[in-house]
Amino acid sequence: MEARNFLRFLFLSLSVVLLIIFTWFNFPHAPQSATELLDCATTSPWCTSSKNRIFHPKPQPKPTRRRTNSHALDVPRHPLDPLTVSEISRVKAILSSHALFKSPGPHSLHSVELEEPEKSRVLEWKRGDLLPPRKASVVARVRGASHVLTVDLATSEVIVHRIGPHSGYPTMTVEDMTTATVAPLASVEFNRTIVDRGVDLTDLACLPISTGWFGGAEEGRRLIKVQCYSMKDTVNFYMRPIEGLTVIVDLDTKQVVEISDKGRSIPIPKAANTDYRFSTMEPNRVMDMLNPISIEQPKGPTFTVEDDHLVKWANWEFHLKPDARAGVIISQARVRDPDTREFRDVMYKGLASELFVPYMDPTDAWYFKTYMDAGEYGFGLQAMPLDPLNDCPRNAYYMDGVFAAADGTPYVQSNMVCVFESYAGDIAWRHAESPITGMEVREVRPKVTLVVRMAASVANYDYIVDWEFQTDGLIRIKVGLSGILMVKGTQYDNTNQVPNQENLYGTLLSENVIGVIHDHYITFYLDMDVDGSYNSFAKVHIQREKTSPGESPRRSYLKATRNVAKTEKEAQIKLKLYDPSEFHVFNPSKKTQIGNPVGYKVVPGGTAASLLDLDDPPQRRGAFTNNQIWVTPYNRSEQWAGGLFVYQSHGEDTLAVWSERDRPIENKDIVLWYTLGFHHVPCQEDFPIMPTVSSSFDLKPVNFFESNPILRIPPNVAKDLPVCKSSASA
Amino acid sequence: MEARNFLRFLFLSLSVVLLIIFTWFNFPHAPQSATELLDCATTSPWCTSSKNRIFHPKPQPKPTRRRTNSHALDVPRHPLDPLTVSEISRVKAILSSHALFKSPGPHSLHSVELEEPEKSRVLEWKRGDLLPPRKASVVARVRGASHVLTVDLATSEVIVHRIGPHSGYPTMTVEDMTTATVAPLASVEFNRTIVDRGVDLTDLACLPISTGWFGGAEEGRRLIKVQCYSMKDTVNFYMRPIEGLTVIVDLDTKQVVEISDKGRSIPIPKAANTDYRFSTMEPNRVMDMLNPISIEQPKGPTFTVEDDHLVKWANWEFHLKPDARAGVIISQARVRDPDTREFRDVMYKGLASELFVPYMDPTDAWYFKTYMDAGEYGFGLQAMPLDPLNDCPRNAYYMDGVFAAADGTPYVQSNMVCVFESYAGDIAWRHAESPITGMEVREVRPKVTLVVRMAASVANYDYIVDWEFQTDGLIRIKVGLSGILMVKGTQYDNTNQVPNQENLYGTLLSENVIGVIHDHYITFYLDMDVDGSYNSFAKVHIQREKTSPGESPRRSYLKATRNVAKTEKEAQIKLKLYDPSEFHVFNPSKKTQIGNPVGYKVVPGGTAASLLDLDDPPQRRGAFTNNQIWVTPYNRSEQWAGGLFVYQSHGEDTLAVWSERDRPIENKDIVLWYTLGFHHVPCQEDFPIMPTVSSSFDLKPVNFFESNPILRIPPNVAKDLPVCKSSASA
Repeated sequence: MEARNFLRFLFLSLSVVLLIIFTWFNFPHAPQSATELLDCATTSPWCTSSKNRIFHPKPQPKPTRRRTNSHALDVPRHPLDPLTVSEISRVKAILSSHALFKSPGPHSLHSVELEEPEKSRVLEWKRGDLLPPRKASVVARVRGASHVLTVDLATSEVIVHRIGPHSGYPTMTVEDMTTATVAPLASVEFNRTIVDRGVDLTDLACLPISTGWFGGAEEGRRLIKVQCYSMKDTVNFYMRPIEGLTVIVDLDTKQVVEISDKGRSIPIPKAANTDYRFSTMEPNRVMDMLNPISIEQPKGPTFTVEDDHLVKWANWEFHLKPDARAGVIISQARVRDPDTREFRDVMYKGLASELFVPYMDPTDAWYFKTYMDAGEYGFGLQAMPLDPLNDCPRNAYYMDGVFAAADGTPYVQSNMVCVFESYAGDIAWRHAESPITGMEVREVRPKVTLVVRMAASVANYDYIVDWEFQTDGLIRIKVGLSGILMVKGTQYDNTNQVPNQENLYGTLLSENVIGVIHDHYITFYLDMDVDGSYNSFAKVHIQREKTSPGESPRRSYLKATRNVAKTEKEAQIKLKLYDPSEFHVFNPSKKTQIGNPVGYKVVPGGTAASLLDLDDPPQRRGAFTNNQIWVTPYNRSEQWAGGLFVYQSHGEDTLAVWSERDRPIENKDIVLWYTLGFHHVPCQEDFPIMPTVSSSFDLKPVNFFESNPILRIPPNVAKDLPVCKSSASA
Repeated sequence: MEARNFLRFLFLSLSVVLLIIFTWFNFPHAPQSATELLDCATTSPWCTSSKNRIFHPKPQPKPTRRRTNSHALDVPRHPLDPLTVSEISRVKAILSSHALFKSPGPHSLHSVELEEPEKSRVLEWKRGDLLPPRKASVVARVRGASHVLTVDLATSEVIVHRIGPHSGYPTMTVEDMTTATVAPLASVEFNRTIVDRGVDLTDLACLPISTGWFGGAEEGRRLIKVQCYSMKDTVNFYMRPIEGLTVIVDLDTKQVVEISDKGRSIPIPKAANTDYRFSTMEPNRVMDMLNPISIEQPKGPTFTVEDDHLVKWANWEFHLKPDARAGVIISQARVRDPDTREFRDVMYKGLASELFVPYMDPTDAWYFKTYMDAGEYGFGLQAMPLDPLNDCPRNAYYMDGVFAAADGTPYVQSNMVCVFESYAGDIAWRHAESPITGMEVREVRPKVTLVVRMAASVANYDYIVDWEFQTDGLIRIKVGLSGILMVKGTQYDNTNQVPNQENLYGTLLSENVIGVIHDHYITFYLDMDVDGSYNSFAKVHIQREKTSPGESPRRSYLKATRNVAKTEKEAQIKLKLYDPSEFHVFNPSKKTQIGNPVGYKVVPGGTAASLLDLDDPPQRRGAFTNNQIWVTPYNRSEQWAGGLFVYQSHGEDTLAVWSERDRPIENKDIVLWYTLGFHHVPCQEDFPIMPTVSSSFDLKPVNFFESNPILRIPPNVAKDLPVCKSSASA
């Protein structure tokens, strides 16, 4: 070895060691015993947790580094409670003595979660009853094959064991992702091209990008594409892509399979003006435009969280739990009837089932970017601790997630979900008599809601998912998009150099930075149980009706026609502004006193539809976005719209495939699916970090109540409102 | 006269006298002199006003009956300031000596408002400059003809005088509406049918319903249709229609023209469960579910209101004024550039131009209900005082309207508009690094907005119109619908009696009550001036592009193509989910540093399109709803989408007609029009008063700023937040 090569080797080795050390110290390690459980707060100074189960209305100092709730003593109290720390440890122990895991060779657990009891068992369970047997559903990779196992925690036995499908792999483990990002460094070729581009290996930040499936190349082995960035002089390395360089890594062996190196002439965009951290702002450039503002509740919040998971607020109650794949799961949402004072079922289970985020650039380093964030990355695994006072207001309650590392060891994701009451100054209902009648009537009621929030950071992008409950029975599901764009390097630093801007596949955002056009689809699973499990789905079609000659001075009016869907295909719905319908899930066995079917309707807001070719491989895998609404019969195995094994799947196990079976859905236990979409043509305002864009849809009672359920809520009066002073003067 | 008839006569006369007295004492009288100006607070115990110009952060007792700001000493300080009390008095005096008004015969003023100076004069005006000459634009009815006059307040002369059009009448005066409601009582036939239906004349409440235009019957004279209700045992008489009885009244002569009496067999729905006033609730049935909650600002609000109309908040400033027809007008909205620190134009003028509310029942007593609330009733005239703490939160500032009565006397509409800062717990932008990178980064900024609100009660319905300004440059225009349905009496008290529910034209809401299907369209006038007056309009068309064979593993992607509209017809836009575009108003003379055109885009949210036959008379009059978006060249006379004279118009002066001229709109001073729509199929939850339903659209900067304009705002920190206690413990 020449001296020069030896120096190179030494330098690279040192870099690799440094990177491994860096990763080691930043990765949330699995602790060795339940009493020594770590959560992110142990390693992160910016991390906090909700030590107290019920919100403390007094102002608290900004939480500092401290050991937070280990959850070591948690016990399940509800059939739907997630696996506890000790249960996950038991699962690990049971599996370790199972034949599959005893034999040598690599193995890892990709999912360890509660196998929920049969719905009927859950529905008949009452507080105080014994819990149904606790079981864990486990997805494992063992020696290159996927396995699905059910572990019975009562008998300590593996009671179900089946081999995974031929296509599709489980959700990546966090270990998969982090090891993939350092795998390229084992390649001399890779390291050389990095150095040749003028980037220090120590400045390298790499991302694991799911490959999707486009044919033979993505079959037979678990692959990931790694792309890298320079984090020199900025924490926002996403704005400094090393363009055109793609490393294909085998996720099981961690070996580099192939390197595609095409963008050497493209400069790495500069770091200037990319950092977004407040600590890096020059004090004289801080825009402190607003006086402090806060939502205050002098008598404390109205909601309670019983047994760690049962949220009770105003006329609502529901079970809430973090989930590694969906982020959060809302179960058994029930609303109190103002007349009977009894709770009535609305939704058995609601969750973000899958995401589909196709980028609109067909070139080598970009075509495969068609993320399915829940099934590939774990939407909940990426939901980092929320920032008190900023992610959620002061009156928020925080809930931790408990997940399993790849070796089965439990770990705590603290402050992963927050719950708070919101008041924006809005109006729940009002009426004032006008000068026309001159009557002295003015009645107004303020609108207060309960928000359940999580924010998943799937690498660059941040998704804020809110479940907002209103006292009038409405549930609003809102998705906010923020975080950082996935951008493309370019030689251009001004649009006047671009021959045809349409061929940029996006917008020039800054010198040498293109924001690539992309879509976001979030498909929600909504197992509606409107006053019971057996429901039907009706389209209330709103159509122009022409009057007969002489019938009326009017030539036309709109008529609503109710069509009950008999089978799944009748409930595959594309929204149409000029051929509108309302979409009702109703209970065919229950009517209001005056005879209307008791129901909830799904009310779309602003949205977007996927326009990709239906035969394009990404769209086949994301075929659950082919319609905005679907209705399927309840089926335990149909919860993940892109299939259980989404990674590199061919799209043979999606909602679209299930729905094609055209099963009966009338007067059945049915599941409603709604897809919320966004087209995102980036603009300069999105650089270097995006102002939140959000959209929502509603689940709204429609003849569910006999009358306005909040007729009798009181108005605000001054004497109830708080007396506040600034804390500086306190 | 028989004794029995005499008794009847006596009874009826007494009733009429009582009704007139009732009306007299409840109608907001025009005061006799400027120093004796009345506002609603003088006659109404529930009415309040903002005595102080700047919000008082300390908790205030619920305002009680008191004399509020008379505005007698107000002087205009900005070219766009509305006419003051003394200016309106001057107009009245000038007109009283004008030949038109000196001669005998009935005359009334239907509109007295500022004639805004030429846009160029306003744009060049700076604080400290002399105001351009103040002029009033007056619409009057004199001896059966409509007149449009311009009164020069400097010279005390009428400088323009033209006679109104052949079709269409001015907005009704409040006096028109109130006198119409009592006019039927002069008809013995009317009174007899009321008594025959078992209703005491003293229990009668009547509404003036615009007739629309359906051909000859509505031509040649100003007509109104009066329908009545029983207010026995409820303040919510709207739920007790006397169905099928329609009285046509001549609005100029106040004479009954015709009575249509068709629904005698239909019972008047019962009063039970219709009252919504808190004071009528049985205490044990009050649903007090929530602890007090409030938006608090310990250091007070951040915004100021200079010279009564100039709102300055964070990086925004704009001129705000109440308007009798539009409700509120936002002018000269400008946002501060974070880089240059200079204010940049965004919108010269924004307002709710017209509403169109067609009901979907072609039968005799319903077909004509196709309201145009701004041009027929005056959206601002119907905007009653807001209820502090309920319509707007505690930190709100209230602005009064100053309008002219039919005789020209000024009067004050207090607390008509509110301005407040809102914080709902939402997120302006965020990013956390995920476990993938393991970096210790979590940056989140709270979202605080400024809301301008008014609520118009056009008889039964309440429209809440919000203009919400965000620090990231976005303006959200939101319309909330609440108030009370316009319902129809029916003999049915259960749906099982109805042979075909589709023929109800609505939903059975309660015994004998049908909520009739209807639409709401609100068309906004948005004179965008993006970085100056000369702008263009581009559709950024998002289309599927197929890849060539061998080009990419992808078969398709989305491509954005920018098409600049040359003339008006190219900017007549129907929204399409499956053929989407972005809609940009941009400045063709201005680019960002890297060369993108500087613009704002209109971002639709949930909406509805009018589906009526284009030749149906209501749709011809409401033809401004034929598209969701239009762009016209700026023209002083084109501000009211349904025409200046909307009442009984034939639709010959609408936005649709103007746009058909297909004028050039490229690099011109252009106006953007957006129509927000709702289909409303009523449900039982809407009875007896409707929970608010809302939708919105956004004006969003798109390459307007060089980068995220709120990158440098600070996060919330605990030490800035207030220390609060409940006032009970204070």
